[in-house]
Amino acid sequence: MGTLNINPELDDQIFNTINPLDPEEFRKQGHMIVNFLADYYQNIEKYPVCSQVNPGYLQKLVPNSAPDNPEPLENILQDVKRDIIPGITHWQSPNFFAYFPSSGSIAGFLGEMLSVGFNVVGFNWISSPAATELESIVMDWFGKMLNLPNSFLFSGGGGGVLQGTTCEAMLCTIVAARDQMLRKIGRENFGKLVVYTSDQTHFSLKKAAHIAGIDPENFRVIPTTKANEYVLCPKSLRLAILKDTKEGMIPLFLCATIGTTSTTSVDPLRSLCEIAKEYGIWVHVDAAYAGSACICPEFQHFLDGIENANSFSLNAHKWFFSTLDCCCLWVKDPSALTKALSTNPECLRNKATELKQVIDYKDWQIALSRRFRALKLWLVLRNYGVTNLRNLIRSHVNMAKHFEGLIAMDKRFEIFVPRKFAMVCFRISPSVISRVSTTFDEEQVNKYNTKLVESINSSGKLYLTHGVVGGIYIIRFAIGASLTDYMHVDVAWKVIQDHANVLLIPGSF
Amino acid sequence: MGTLNINPELDDQIFNTINPLDPEEFRKQGHMIVNFLADYYQNIEKYPVCSQVNPGYLQKLVPNSAPDNPEPLENILQDVKRDIIPGITHWQSPNFFAYFPSSGSIAGFLGEMLSVGFNVVGFNWISSPAATELESIVMDWFGKMLNLPNSFLFSGGGGGVLQGTTCEAMLCTIVAARDQMLRKIGRENFGKLVVYTSDQTHFSLKKAAHIAGIDPENFRVIPTTKANEYVLCPKSLRLAILKDTKEGMIPLFLCATIGTTSTTSVDPLRSLCEIAKEYGIWVHVDAAYAGSACICPEFQHFLDGIENANSFSLNAHKWFFSTLDCCCLWVKDPSALTKALSTNPECLRNKATELKQVIDYKDWQIALSRRFRALKLWLVLRNYGVTNLRNLIRSHVNMAKHFEGLIAMDKRFEIFVPRKFAMVCFRISPSVISRVSTTFDEEQVNKYNTKLVESINSSGKLYLTHGVVGGIYIIRFAIGASLTDYMHVDVAWKVIQDHANVLLIPGSF
Repeated sequence: MGTLNINPELDDQIFNTINPLDPEEFRKQGHMIVNFLADYYQNIEKYPVCSQVNPGYLQKLVPNSAPDNPEPLENILQDVKRDIIPGITHWQSPNFFAYFPSSGSIAGFLGEMLSVGFNVVGFNWISSPAATELESIVMDWFGKMLNLPNSFLFSGGGGGVLQGTTCEAMLCTIVAARDQMLRKIGRENFGKLVVYTSDQTHFSLKKAAHIAGIDPENFRVIPTTKANEYVLCPKSLRLAILKDTKEGMIPLFLCATIGTTSTTSVDPLRSLCEIAKEYGIWVHVDAAYAGSACICPEFQHFLDGIENANSFSLNAHKWFFSTLDCCCLWVKDPSALTKALSTNPECLRNKATELKQVIDYKDWQIALSRRFRALKLWLVLRNYGVTNLRNLIRSHVNMAKHFEGLIAMDKRFEIFVPRKFAMVCFRISPSVISRVSTTFDEEQVNKYNTKLVESINSSGKLYLTHGVVGGIYIIRFAIGASLTDYMHVDVAWKVIQDHANVLLIPGSF
Repeated sequence: MGTLNINPELDDQIFNTINPLDPEEFRKQGHMIVNFLADYYQNIEKYPVCSQVNPGYLQKLVPNSAPDNPEPLENILQDVKRDIIPGITHWQSPNFFAYFPSSGSIAGFLGEMLSVGFNVVGFNWISSPAATELESIVMDWFGKMLNLPNSFLFSGGGGGVLQGTTCEAMLCTIVAARDQMLRKIGRENFGKLVVYTSDQTHFSLKKAAHIAGIDPENFRVIPTTKANEYVLCPKSLRLAILKDTKEGMIPLFLCATIGTTSTTSVDPLRSLCEIAKEYGIWVHVDAAYAGSACICPEFQHFLDGIENANSFSLNAHKWFFSTLDCCCLWVKDPSALTKALSTNPECLRNKATELKQVIDYKDWQIALSRRFRALKLWLVLRNYGVTNLRNLIRSHVNMAKHFEGLIAMDKRFEIFVPRKFAMVCFRISPSVISRVSTTFDEEQVNKYNTKLVESINSSGKLYLTHGVVGGIYIIRFAIGASLTDYMHVDVAWKVIQDHANVLLIPGSF
């Protein structure tokens, strides 16, 4: 112990100058941060939505090593304001229309605060019973709101778990499916397992399959078409499966999507699941974005046929007001998950587990440690109530309809695919480009649209992102930030038009 | 849209009764939760440390479905107090000595609040530059504090990333090692890859290897001995490798541990890494618990030889005052990680990434989405400063020394292995059992010790957990909860003695 005094208590009289959890200090500093964040929300529209800093900006502003001595919170918060906030892309801004939303809410925030404050590690039931039990309860509540078949709920033999992200949920379900299949066909056939997706499936699935050891050669990406609104065509799936089985391959896993990333397309669940069932394929339904909409009865038909799927997930942190991260995964057969992911180390042995009276969620996910995420979902559900939550979702959908109406009135733009939820896909129409550009082909149309997005984003007034489907660059306008109102949509449209005005002056680009 | 009015704006006049991020409501409710949690810390010693509820307790207290209408925060907080807190095992209690600590702190809490408040999704640089840049900066800061070789820092060609848990870090590094090896030997040799561990390696490694598709038959668990203080013996490792290579197997991965779960043993890094280097084996150093101690110069010798390892991780949420979850992973060759885990979807294309000027952390981890975890580590480092952090760690170690001294004075107990950090492994001595028990063998000794732990935990006065090494049940007393002081250690020892007094009355058990 180097220079330390031999008497430990004397040492600590010198050392122990701080109590890292002093309640009164916690109260004082906690209030400071609450005020800081309330002010942030108050002023959020003053910041450029997409950060305008250059790579490496922060390194120039901070020292090369951690300070030896404590710095007061006041100073640190000044630095947050001066150095960090300019480097933040403001996902909570009402002018954020990029990617999919990361919808925060007060209730979600408060739930997370409680979770961080209790700071329990809920790997198994005994480590904090309420963490496990509340999670099972809210997953059943949420499942009922979505009108999921009973077979996905604990009350019907299935069950739900809160994970961090859809990527984890995909990885866990692939591993569950993989192990279930290998138990049947033997490990020597590992290399024959095939995963099916469409070219619109989220790219995370490929990564998950790769991590799980599926041969990248056995990852089937089935093309979609504009005529088919970019959905995975059951006929194409069957053809792909037939080709594989003919060649001795073993169909393992299909990911169907409710609300694809590029265009929010909805794969035809019923037909896909029926085909999968014939071949014993595990179907995972990825509704990361659009799943939340299915708490509204008018959207629930998109889940028709899900009773033949094996697992279903959505990100409550996307469009369900539960701050990042909060992925809800339901499975029909929890034992498939737990057979693949269980560990039973001596150090975690306890009576409740041994008597099989409880759920140990560590066996439903990749990691051992897990946060008490159920609190935030519980607070969102209780503090807003189902009716308000449906209406919030509907208000976003209605704003998207409104935006669609604005586009329809400007002949220079075209809606690219029919809107289903709260995202509108559009672009400057090729016919306009043909008039203002000296060259004209699909590539030139893409260039103009790319330029439009770049020019808008660098204005800092709003942030939107793009997709490319079938070689066509489309602009995605995703509504769902919690602070967004009609006013912001109208202003955004005005900004888009202004930038288009400049861009579309013949010869300007 | 069912019964919805055709005019969307009219609809929303009816619908949009709440603003989920209203700044003044945020301020009001945020203060309520801060006060709630400050009171919780104030009263934390009043609760039984380990929850005393029975399985299924919560289901009986809550409704079967989410409420249709909003409920005020006041009511929800009353329910937290009445229904949730009794179901919580209080990891932040000063009387929590179980597992390893989950050391919360005000600074960690505040950092997490900022992260949740900004609620950015920092998958790549452009999605929120500060999230990426601050993470790289604090990882270099932390690496320097640990005196890690420069080759693990960004400034030396390596680099660090914040993940959720060690399980994820293990999975990512195994996949990186796997892919690096498969590029050399060809995918057809997948089934020959071998992973090496000791019987003291954390069980998560086995799960990670399994998820990554390593054949469970190729998972080598090398036995340790008490004589060797439960460390992985280099000679045994070499023998295991030789046997495998002779049989045509391909050594892939070794996990060495600094501070094992059962006894905080420290594997001899230098020798192990040298052997691994000979065979081209990827060495991951798991210092989940004890890594944090290495910010103190007097503990840094435990990392001697790490320059030949490939990756190193510790959980800042365990013993570094950064609330769950916060696993720090450093790698010497980031390209090995990113080759295995990169995705380049069109929807995330941006100039900064294309010009290779920035880090996109999504390619350093399993998931795409990621929280702004760097904020909490930054706040911990700045708000406490290196000197205080070292002294906090030292105060825990000194309390453990003190506890060790108390045990040494009571002949009925024995210290089981020499203490290295802030955890003491002990048990009721076999010689005592032989005097009070009618039967006497190792199993009976284990039974007495099991009974002692159960009896103490059910008192609710403190919480400790056990380990089993070489068939011997040991009691683990892990100091590190942020509120723990000498007083709590003294009281805990008194409780342990009291329970032992009752248990050791001849014939009482």
